Amino acid sequence: MTDAPASSAPTEWVLTVSCPDGPGIVAAVTGTLAARGDNITESQQFGDPASGLFFLRLQVVSSATRDELVTALTPAFESFGMTWQLDAVGRRVRTLLLVSKAAHCLVDLLYRERSQGMPIDVVGVVGNHPDLQDIAAFYGKPFHHIPVTADTKADAEDRLRALVEELDVELVVLARYMQILSDALCRDLAGQVINIHHSFLPSFKGARPYVQAHDRGVKLIGATSHYVTGDLDEGPIIEQDVERVDHSRTPADLVAIGEDVERRTLARAVRWHAEHRVLLDGHRTVVFR
Amino acid sequence: MTDAPASSAPTEWVLTVSCPDGPGIVAAVTGTLAARGDNITESQQFGDPASGLFFLRLQVVSSATRDELVTALTPAFESFGMTWQLDAVGRRVRTLLLVSKAAHCLVDLLYRERSQGMPIDVVGVVGNHPDLQDIAAFYGKPFHHIPVTADTKADAEDRLRALVEELDVELVVLARYMQILSDALCRDLAGQVINIHHSFLPSFKGARPYVQAHDRGVKLIGATSHYVTGDLDEGPIIEQDVERVDHSRTPADLVAIGEDVERRTLARAVRWHAEHRVLLDGHRTVVFR
Amino acid sequence: MTDAPASSAPTEWVLTVSCPDGPGIVAAVTGTLAARGDNITESQQFGDPASGLFFLRLQVVSSATRDELVTALTPAFESFGMTWQLDAVGRRVRTLLLVSKAAHCLVDLLYRERSQGMPIDVVGVVGNHPDLQDIAAFYGKPFHHIPVTADTKADAEDRLRALVEELDVELVVLARYMQILSDALCRDLAGQVINIHHSFLPSFKGARPYVQAHDRGVKLIGATSHYVTGDLDEGPIIEQDVERVDHSRTPADLVAIGEDVERRTLARAVRWHAEHRVLLDGHRTVVFR
Amino acid sequence: MTDAPASSAPTEWVLTVSCPDGPGIVAAVTGTLAARGDNITESQQFGDPASGLFFLRLQVVSSATRDELVTALTPAFESFGMTWQLDAVGRRVRTLLLVSKAAHCLVDLLYRERSQGMPIDVVGVVGNHPDLQDIAAFYGKPFHHIPVTADTKADAEDRLRALVEELDVELVVLARYMQILSDALCRDLAGQVINIHHSFLPSFKGARPYVQAHDRGVKLIGATSHYVTGDLDEGPIIEQDVERVDHSRTPADLVAIGEDVERRTLARAVRWHAEHRVLLDGHRTVVFR
Repeated sequence: MTDAPASSAPTEWVLTVSCPDGPGIVAAVTGTLAARGDNITESQQFGDPASGLFFLRLQVVSSATRDELVTALTPAFESFGMTWQLDAVGRRVRTLLLVSKAAHCLVDLLYRERSQGMPIDVVGVVGNHPDLQDIAAFYGKPFHHIPVTADTKADAEDRLRALVEELDVELVVLARYMQILSDALCRDLAGQVINIHHSFLPSFKGARPYVQAHDRGVKLIGATSHYVTGDLDEGPIIEQDVERVDHSRTPADLVAIGEDVERRTLARAVRWHAEHRVLLDGHRTVVFR
Repeated sequence: MTDAPASSAPTEWVLTVSCPDGPGIVAAVTGTLAARGDNITESQQFGDPASGLFFLRLQVVSSATRDELVTALTPAFESFGMTWQLDAVGRRVRTLLLVSKAAHCLVDLLYRERSQGMPIDVVGVVGNHPDLQDIAAFYGKPFHHIPVTADTKADAEDRLRALVEELDVELVVLARYMQILSDALCRDLAGQVINIHHSFLPSFKGARPYVQAHDRGVKLIGATSHYVTGDLDEGPIIEQDVERVDHSRTPADLVAIGEDVERRTLARAVRWHAEHRVLLDGHRTVVFR
Repeated sequence: MTDAPASSAPTEWVLTVSCPDGPGIVAAVTGTLAARGDNITESQQFGDPASGLFFLRLQVVSSATRDELVTALTPAFESFGMTWQLDAVGRRVRTLLLVSKAAHCLVDLLYRERSQGMPIDVVGVVGNHPDLQDIAAFYGKPFHHIPVTADTKADAEDRLRALVEELDVELVVLARYMQILSDALCRDLAGQVINIHHSFLPSFKGARPYVQAHDRGVKLIGATSHYVTGDLDEGPIIEQDVERVDHSRTPADLVAIGEDVERRTLARAVRWHAEHRVLLDGHRTVVFR
Repeated sequence: MTDAPASSAPTEWVLTVSCPDGPGIVAAVTGTLAARGDNITESQQFGDPASGLFFLRLQVVSSATRDELVTALTPAFESFGMTWQLDAVGRRVRTLLLVSKAAHCLVDLLYRERSQGMPIDVVGVVGNHPDLQDIAAFYGKPFHHIPVTADTKADAEDRLRALVEELDVELVVLARYMQILSDALCRDLAGQVINIHHSFLPSFKGARPYVQAHDRGVKLIGATSHYVTGDLDEGPIIEQDVERVDHSRTPADLVAIGEDVERRTLARAVRWHAEHRVLLDGHRTVVFR
């Protein structure tokens, strides 16, 4: 968490909470805020009978500083064993984009940052190939060429980790990055790495999904945006979408059509994450849209 | 409101509230419930900057009777000038279906009542033609044939009013009922009559929308479900959906394709209304899905 | 093929053809028809580079009898090694519906036959449970209760075969029939049996797909209509569709939402088959919509 | 028409034809090609009962030059009074993009030209504001700043016409160009100018459609791509699409969501036009996808 406003002018805050379900959770949080005279402007909640967990997302306008709010809420946080996040609404999340050669997701995210108010601050672009350097440059983003080969994989990942630390990165987006992160890195960045997979998971896991899709003769092709875990293509799904195709489409057509689905699916996932709308519920997600 | 459980065994209640926006609304309601030890299981809210109104929908598990809950909440209701509804979750709303000759919406709603747990209790079917009597009979529903001509329109509407009263009807659904209700009836049943219009409003208002759509060469056709007001085709929209078509479709094709869009659009609107998810915000709706 | 008009009044015919790709196919067929003075009213074609096969679907208005057309076209059929079908446009395909307890697909298909002009003639309904007898009766369809147990499976299938033969059945639709046909029956009825699978294949093959879908946390659920082959859930896909869901949906919700997707996906597949729009291309389909 | 291959190596050609409907049209064209030994690889046709017109689109592989093909086909063209176009498949259509300040459609089209094989050759970008000059420069496109005021409108249009002529422009795309072309220019470029309108026409014609959509409380917002005629917002529709929204969206949200719908709707229309898939049928279009 960085850059939170410290002034006492009214700020809109977003609070997300998860904890074991039970009575009194909402009242404990909203009662605390009401006692302070703060005004709740958005509220969503979900109790998952399967996991026994409860999830809450609030937006609240308050003249308190972040520290004052945390202090006020700490009794509730502690008595219910809450996992929580508190951030200023609209604060831009420091984001690192990882790419290879395909430009569509990169162009789309940079465009949305600049022109659509997506609350991310892209602090750098990493490519294992140099191809997309000019696009990064056009948007004024530092480009880091970190080639990856079997021999250099460990070194490359060290450079990546160093970059994440040095740039104070909060979110890593694999924007069609054709490399697999190590288990260790996945663990260390759990819940902070979003991938776009070019199929409607769990169909067509693994390589060349459009060729598989063409071969199976499916009538819709899809894309899946998910958090990255060590378990490849099995991370918690954030968003999925599909597009209709027919028999006349070649595998190359499916790739082109798929690009549109991929970029919009990834963009939604990144936006919802950056707006603190996505909460982890085991290997599933709760998305408060 | 009828049939609300009176026992003190824990019941899940749904409370909807609207009032002028301002601080403290959520806290007043949830604080009251928390003080009673009741458990909020669902919560959605929306403040509309355009109308200045605030909307809240809660589900709460409580061992209180309905009267006890109302008593407890009355101070909040009064101090904020709230319009409110309180109902048991899942209670089936007493519904009257009005039809003409087209069967698709009727069949669909009766099927969903019987097999999909849609929380409506269809207490009768009214047809201005007798054609759909057998479908009503198959589902065990009383069918009332009330013909409408220019001469008998006032009489017919009187019979309709009498039926609404006698059957304790809470919701009237115009399931492709090809008659226009009088202004007076619209006013008296405001917010209790749902219509399905066979176009994507505000396109193609008025008669024969599929012919208009064909003539204009649109590439998607749609349907709109809305509350009925005296202002024809201008009532608050609850739900809309579309289907893709192409140049090769005749007006007759558009009608057939449109039937699918109509029945699912209407079914969603009726379900959301019956689950108290739709709140009126002037000539717009808030739909807490 | 039954009931083809024998008169010499102009009839609209639908001709489908598949054969190894190569030059001159279209010209051979259309040249023959042009030489007769027949008027081609619809034409679609597709050459599949993957399989090397060519597919053609024509509608043609002709005053010829079916026999005269076949005689005229036989040289083309033979010189290109064509597989072909010739039928009168709009002739209703004799169809047998197989069901278990779930009514939604049965109700939908019977409604579409009666009211939407779907060109099928449902000559009977077979249930391995008696539950849906009343719906069949309502639509005036003979209902055959053929229970299936481990012990009686062979007998039951014999009765099914006998029915198919006796009723001159051209198409068997598994409208949520919860039994697996034997390999032998699948082979004998190849290309004549359509199933609806309640998932977006190839995801979630096998039993209880909605539970699997819920557990995986997918954001869209789907249905797949396909020809039945001995290879369970792997037959050629005719149509697929999806519906958006979110974290708050229980497995029971997914089932209810899924019913809508299933019935419309199956209805499209059955209609396209009955209109001779679906051609087999190995384990894929060509669908000329 | 420019740059058509002149060699006699086999080329794939696309032929589009429209004429009054009647027997023998397909046979006349395909018979001519068959007699030459040319191979038809794609074929679509449509007879519109409303307009009485017939439409045909063929792709054919031939070793003929364009002139030889035209000569061969001229008897058919003449005897049926055909309007026709003949082009090499994949030839890039010389395209001029007109923009104001909004970048999303410009970025999208330039990306698709460069990376997705959209068969357009963007020969220049015209802006009535200079804002998007850098994007044009990034993609290596000449940018022409042609300001438009009430006083300079006639001059500006003269410069536009000069540019169209000088650059041999075949297609003008109004990629969120916030100016209205004069009737005279619309007439002169009839069927060669594509606009993207930010509403689901015919809803919300005119200015500020997202404000209108918000005010009416619609549940889907859409975009319409159409040919430009003097009759504002009434030109033949090529493609439409929609996106779901709910009550919580502000007009600003609708604008951002709308951008995605606009760019993909426009991109499809431009691609289909450039692939000669769009034929004019009075004030409607036939789109052979």
